[in-house]
Amino acid sequence: MKQYYSYDDFKRDTRALIKDVKSTSPDAIVGIARGGLTLSHAVAEGLNIREVQTIRTELYDASCKREEIKLFGSCNFKNSKKVLVLDDIADSGETLKSIMHYLESEFQDIEFISATLFYKKSSCYKPHFWVREARQWIEFFWEKDFLQE
Amino acid sequence: MKQYYSYDDFKRDTRALIKDVKSTSPDAIVGIARGGLTLSHAVAEGLNIREVQTIRTELYDASCKREEIKLFGSCNFKNSKKVLVLDDIADSGETLKSIMHYLESEFQDIEFISATLFYKKSSCYKPHFWVREARQWIEFFWEKDFLQE
Repeated sequence: MKQYYSYDDFKRDTRALIKDVKSTSPDAIVGIARGGLTLSHAVAEGLNIREVQTIRTELYDASCKREEIKLFGSCNFKNSKKVLVLDDIADSGETLKSIMHYLESEFQDIEFISATLFYKKSSCYKPHFWVREARQWIEFFWEKDFLQE
Repeated sequence: MKQYYSYDDFKRDTRALIKDVKSTSPDAIVGIARGGLTLSHAVAEGLNIREVQTIRTELYDASCKREEIKLFGSCNFKNSKKVLVLDDIADSGETLKSIMHYLESEFQDIEFISATLFYKKSSCYKPHFWVREARQWIEFFWEKDFLQE
């Protein structure tokens, strides 16, 4: 069973998320593509942060043993001390876990804070901030509203 | 006078834009941050393109003679032949013009196609595809819906 997640749902939850993360005073945003793009845009506007970068991942089965996550897009921080990392959902958690690991080891002087709209209890990574627990399959409006009929 | 541009307006116009650009069969997307982020997400989903990168610009007055545009974030294309460059609006056109110039000179084997939701007749750059002419100041929903009251 899929749960359609409309723009109005997104607007309400993103406003709540902005309120929560605001206290951490981030000065830059890393959005995870594709799922975190719309959220990154909204949070960047809400917090008035101009510096938004994105990173994307691909799952690939390299060894037939386990899936590996490849990261694309290198980040570059000029004067940032606190960076907010955004994705739509921590589902398996593998993507966020890899990206946080990459960022934290690559930029040791910067504090990274993760936030998502949804968090699944079975995720191997728990974001610092999240709004709702995902109990079923979420169909985000951006996954549905732009498909040709 | 500002014209509020709602999510429903965006949905209608982005679907029209997707229909138009589909014929060019792009295999990757470059979104211009911040304005082009939500659009890039929507078009990527609508065309089923996984490879989405972003680039951002800053206007700065270096010489007191004229404003210069600095680009941040380097692009990286693996197997792409045709890349769709997306922004919300071609207003002065300076941003798109600089970015297209950078991409076309840096990646000469790739064809770049530009598309925006809005185009202003006074813009110094005309995108290959655009949906509406901007006759007044557009207030996009992402600029308004996430501000704290």
